[in-house]
Amino acid sequence: MSATPEPQKIIALVVRHNTAGIEGPVTNIVQFLQHAGYRVVFEAETAAHVRLPGIDAMTVTEIGERASAAVVVGGDGTMLGIARQLARYEVPLIGINQGRLGFMTDIPIERMVPALGEILEGQASAEKRTLLQGRVLRAGEEIFCAVAVNDVVVARGTGAGMAELKVTVDGQFMYNQRSDGLIVATPTGSTAYALSAGGPLLHPTLAGISLVPIAPHALSNRPIVVPDSSEIVVEIVGGRDISVNFDMQTFASLQHGDKIVIARAPHSITFLHPEGWSYYHTLREKLHWNE
Amino acid sequence: MSATPEPQKIIALVVRHNTAGIEGPVTNIVQFLQHAGYRVVFEAETAAHVRLPGIDAMTVTEIGERASAAVVVGGDGTMLGIARQLARYEVPLIGINQGRLGFMTDIPIERMVPALGEILEGQASAEKRTLLQGRVLRAGEEIFCAVAVNDVVVARGTGAGMAELKVTVDGQFMYNQRSDGLIVATPTGSTAYALSAGGPLLHPTLAGISLVPIAPHALSNRPIVVPDSSEIVVEIVGGRDISVNFDMQTFASLQHGDKIVIARAPHSITFLHPEGWSYYHTLREKLHWNE
Amino acid sequence: MSATPEPQKIIALVVRHNTAGIEGPVTNIVQFLQHAGYRVVFEAETAAHVRLPGIDAMTVTEIGERASAAVVVGGDGTMLGIARQLARYEVPLIGINQGRLGFMTDIPIERMVPALGEILEGQASAEKRTLLQGRVLRAGEEIFCAVAVNDVVVARGTGAGMAELKVTVDGQFMYNQRSDGLIVATPTGSTAYALSAGGPLLHPTLAGISLVPIAPHALSNRPIVVPDSSEIVVEIVGGRDISVNFDMQTFASLQHGDKIVIARAPHSITFLHPEGWSYYHTLREKLHWNE
Amino acid sequence: MSATPEPQKIIALVVRHNTAGIEGPVTNIVQFLQHAGYRVVFEAETAAHVRLPGIDAMTVTEIGERASAAVVVGGDGTMLGIARQLARYEVPLIGINQGRLGFMTDIPIERMVPALGEILEGQASAEKRTLLQGRVLRAGEEIFCAVAVNDVVVARGTGAGMAELKVTVDGQFMYNQRSDGLIVATPTGSTAYALSAGGPLLHPTLAGISLVPIAPHALSNRPIVVPDSSEIVVEIVGGRDISVNFDMQTFASLQHGDKIVIARAPHSITFLHPEGWSYYHTLREKLHWNE
Repeated sequence: MSATPEPQKIIALVVRHNTAGIEGPVTNIVQFLQHAGYRVVFEAETAAHVRLPGIDAMTVTEIGERASAAVVVGGDGTMLGIARQLARYEVPLIGINQGRLGFMTDIPIERMVPALGEILEGQASAEKRTLLQGRVLRAGEEIFCAVAVNDVVVARGTGAGMAELKVTVDGQFMYNQRSDGLIVATPTGSTAYALSAGGPLLHPTLAGISLVPIAPHALSNRPIVVPDSSEIVVEIVGGRDISVNFDMQTFASLQHGDKIVIARAPHSITFLHPEGWSYYHTLREKLHWNE
Repeated sequence: MSATPEPQKIIALVVRHNTAGIEGPVTNIVQFLQHAGYRVVFEAETAAHVRLPGIDAMTVTEIGERASAAVVVGGDGTMLGIARQLARYEVPLIGINQGRLGFMTDIPIERMVPALGEILEGQASAEKRTLLQGRVLRAGEEIFCAVAVNDVVVARGTGAGMAELKVTVDGQFMYNQRSDGLIVATPTGSTAYALSAGGPLLHPTLAGISLVPIAPHALSNRPIVVPDSSEIVVEIVGGRDISVNFDMQTFASLQHGDKIVIARAPHSITFLHPEGWSYYHTLREKLHWNE
Repeated sequence: MSATPEPQKIIALVVRHNTAGIEGPVTNIVQFLQHAGYRVVFEAETAAHVRLPGIDAMTVTEIGERASAAVVVGGDGTMLGIARQLARYEVPLIGINQGRLGFMTDIPIERMVPALGEILEGQASAEKRTLLQGRVLRAGEEIFCAVAVNDVVVARGTGAGMAELKVTVDGQFMYNQRSDGLIVATPTGSTAYALSAGGPLLHPTLAGISLVPIAPHALSNRPIVVPDSSEIVVEIVGGRDISVNFDMQTFASLQHGDKIVIARAPHSITFLHPEGWSYYHTLREKLHWNE
Repeated sequence: MSATPEPQKIIALVVRHNTAGIEGPVTNIVQFLQHAGYRVVFEAETAAHVRLPGIDAMTVTEIGERASAAVVVGGDGTMLGIARQLARYEVPLIGINQGRLGFMTDIPIERMVPALGEILEGQASAEKRTLLQGRVLRAGEEIFCAVAVNDVVVARGTGAGMAELKVTVDGQFMYNQRSDGLIVATPTGSTAYALSAGGPLLHPTLAGISLVPIAPHALSNRPIVVPDSSEIVVEIVGGRDISVNFDMQTFASLQHGDKIVIARAPHSITFLHPEGWSYYHTLREKLHWNE
C-alpha cells in the first residue's frame, strides 16, 4: 500500500514585457526552481512574450488558486500589476528587479539565485502590505469598484479649474478641499505618487492611510494620516473632467455628487524577502540617504 | 477765438458676470466718475449683462486704444481676463474686489469711491507687472502663441503617466523632469497656482520668473527662480495627453518633440493703487499672516 | 443602621497664570461644580495666584491620586504642563480655552458651563492620547528620563554646525541624518512643532509616531511615520551644543555617543470632550480650512 | 634703452586644513603655475600647515592687494571662508574640489591642470556673486557688522521658545514671524541652508534675496524673494537666546529691540570657471537630477 505522493508545489513566474536580454536570467530562475523540486509555470501574458520550451502557462486565476508563490522579474510597475490581481488569493510574492532597485522588487538580479534559495528554504521574512478598496457611488448605486496597492487618486483633468472635493472620514466631515486632486495612499504607496506630492513616508507595518492633497489652494491643507480602519468618502463637489485612478488605472467621467468610498481591502498582499532584509535599507538606497 | 477743448478722458468699466446686486455699486462708480468729468464706457461683455441707460459699450480694442484707465469690479479672475487682453495697450488698471480681497483686486468695494478719488487726483502708486509670452513650436514652426499674466503651465492629463519635460534655459540644459507638469510663473502668478505647488512668493518688482514642478518624481527638483531676461524652453519628451495652459486657457494635444518657448512678454501691465498701498499688506490679509 | 455615604467626588482646577480677569470665569466654574455636588480643589500653583475663599489646594500628586477629573482653563501650554504630570495617574482632563481655541483646550469659555454639564452627565466622548517616554543613555547608563505629550526633540545649538544623528528603529539602522535636529512626535504633537517643520498631521487614534527632521541637509530626508510600538534610538554622532527637549523642557549638554531611547510611554492621557466633538472641526478652525 | 619689465603676476593658493594627501596635488598646481610664468604664494594659514620649500606666505590683505587670482583647493567651506575675506579686494576665485563636487568648488582635482590652463589663457567665464552685509543696531547704534556670502541667519537658541521677529523691507512692514529663525540668503546661499529649510533655488544671476523662515508657526509664512536692492530689517521682538549668524559665524546675545539691517554688500565676488561651465550641470550633479 503506497501513500499518495504530495503534489508538486507550483511557482509562477511573471516577467516584465519588452525587456531585452531577459531570457537568460529567466532560464536561470526556471532551472534553479525545477532543480529545487518545484513546478514552474508562466503567467499567461508572460508566456506570450517569453518563449521557453516545456513551461506551461497559467492564467492569473489559476496561479491564484494553485501556486505557492509568484516570482516577479521586472520593476515596481510589473509587481504593482500582478499584486493587485493576486491579492485576493494571498499568494506570496517575491520581487526581483531587472534594472534599478525597486521599493517592491528589491532583490537584485545578480543575487536572485541565492536569495531565492534562502527564501524557499524558509529563511525568509514575510511582510504583509495593506491594500485599498474603492467604490464609486452614483446616486447611491455602486457603479465601479477596484483595488489599489499604492493609491486611489481623485484628480481633475488638465486645463480644467480646480477640483472641489468634500472629504468625510468615518462619517465626520473633514473639509472641502480645492486642489488638483487628492491621493489616498497605503504605506506601500507612500513612496510613490504621495511622496512626490509632499506626503510622509509610512512604515509598511503602520496601520495607517495617508491623505495627500495635490497642489491644494489652502496652504494649510497638509497631508494627514488616519487609521487604516477608517472609511474615507470623497465626494465630487466642483470641477470638471474629474476621474479616479487606482494605481494609475483610470475610471473617468465622474459627475458632481459622485462619491468614492475608500477603505482597507479585505485581502492583503505578502512579500517574501531574504532574511536580514530591511525596509530602511531600501529607503536609503532609493532616496540616496547613504551619501 | 477759442482754444480747441481738450477731449474728455475715457474710463472703461469691466464688471464680473453673474454678480447679484452689482448694479448699485456700479451706478455709484459711474456717477462718481461722470461727476469728476470722465466719460464712462462699459467693456462690451459687461454691457451685455449690466444694464445702465446712457452708457456706451466699447470693445477691448477700442478701450485699449482710447481709454485712460480701466476699472475692474470683481475678483482676480475678472482682472486676469481683461489684463491679458489690455496688456499690449498699456492701459492702467484699477481693481475693486466685489466679495473677497484679491491679490490684484485690492480695493474693497466699501472704499472704492474715496480710493478712486485719490487715484484719479494722482495720489496713486503705479505698479508694473511683468507678463509671459509663450510660443508653441512643432517641428520648428510656431503653431500657437499666447500671453499670460500669472503662468504658463505644461501639464499631463489625468490618468496618463507622468509627463517628461526637457527644460533648457538660455540654451543651457537644466534637466529632464518627470512630474505632473511644470509651472512657469511671473511674480504675479507666484501667489496663485505656483504657491499651491510649493513655489516661493516673488515680490512684484523682482526681475524673476519661477519654475515650479508639480509633484516631481525627484524630490530634489525644487522650485528655481531665474532672471526674467531668460528664455525658457520646455520640450515634451514623454507622457500622454499633455497640454499647455496660459492663465488656465488651454492649448491641448501637444506631441512629443513640441517645444514651448517662454519669455517675458514685450508689454507689461500697470496697476494703480491708492497711495500707501503695500504689497505686504495684501499678503498678510490673504495669507492670514496677521493672526 | 445607615449606609456609609459615598465620598464626594473631587474635581481639580488648573488655571493659567497671569491671566487678567480669570477670577470671574473660575468662580462660575467652581459654583457650577459645587452646585452639581462635586468638591472643587485648586492645583497648588493655581491656588497661589488665584484667590478664592474656601477652596482647598492639592498638589499634583494628591490630585492624581484622588481627583475624578481635572478642568484646565488656559491654553494648550497650560494643558501640556499638567497633562504630562498627571499622565501616570490617568486622571481625565477637560480643556477650556481662555483666549484662542486650542488643539487640546477646545471648549470656548463662553460654552464652558453647558459643556461641563454635558460631560459630567456622561454625554462625553473620552479620547486617549499616546505619550512618549525618552531616556538619555550615556555609556549605557541612564542619566535622564522624561515623558512628553507632544514631542521629544533632539536639536543643535545656535551657531553650531549641523547635528549629525544616527537613527535606529527597532534595532534597524535608519540613517545618519545631518540637520538642525529631529522631532519625534505623537499624534498630539503632530499639530505643534512637527507641523511647522513640515510633518504630516496624524489623527489622534493613529497608532503612529512621526519622525520629522528639521531643515535636513538631504532633501530626501522626509518625515516618516512608524508604528507606536517602535523603539527609536537617536545617537549623537556629530555637532556641538546638542540638547534634547521634552515638550520644550530641555536636557542640555549631550555628548557624542549619548543615545536617546524613545518609545510610547506606559501611560496615556484621556481628554473628555462634549458629545459631538470632532477632531476635524478643531483642525478646520485652527488651520483656517473653513474659508 | 630697455622697457621696465612687467611685474610677475601673483596667484595665491588657499588649501583646506587637515587634508591627508593634499601635498601631491598642491605641488602639481604650484609647478604648473610657475611653469606658466606666475609667482605662487600661499595664504598665511595654508603656509602654516602645507610645507612646500620656496613658496612665500602672504596675509589675506596682501593677497587682496597684490594677487591676480586665488586658487582654492578644498570644499565649499574653504571657499566660503576665504571668499568673504577677499570680497572687498575683488580678487577672482578659482575653486578646485578635493573630495566631493562643491557648488563653488566645481573643478574636480583630476581636471585641475587643464582647467587652470584654460582659465589662465582666458578661456574662462567670469561669474559675479552678490554678497550680503548685515549690521546689528542696538538702540540705534551699530554694535556689529559683517559680510556673508551665503546667508545671514537670525535664530533662537535650543530649548528656548520660538523667536518672534518683526520683518520690514524698504520701510514696509512685512510681518511678525514666529519660528526657529529666518534665513536671508543670496543666490549663492540658496543651495545651502536656505534649501534645507524649504527655500527655492535662485540662479546666480538673479538680482534677488530670499527670506526663508525656519519651521515657522504659521504654515503660510512661505519663502519670499525680494529684489537685491532691498533693505531688510529684522527686529528681535520676542524669544530668548537669539543670535545672528553670518555664514555660520555667530554674533550672539541679541536683545529685544535689536535690529539687524541687511542689504547687498558694496562688493561682490567673482568666480572663474572653465569655458563651457554650466550652473545647471553643477545642480544636476549635486542634487542627483541626472538619474
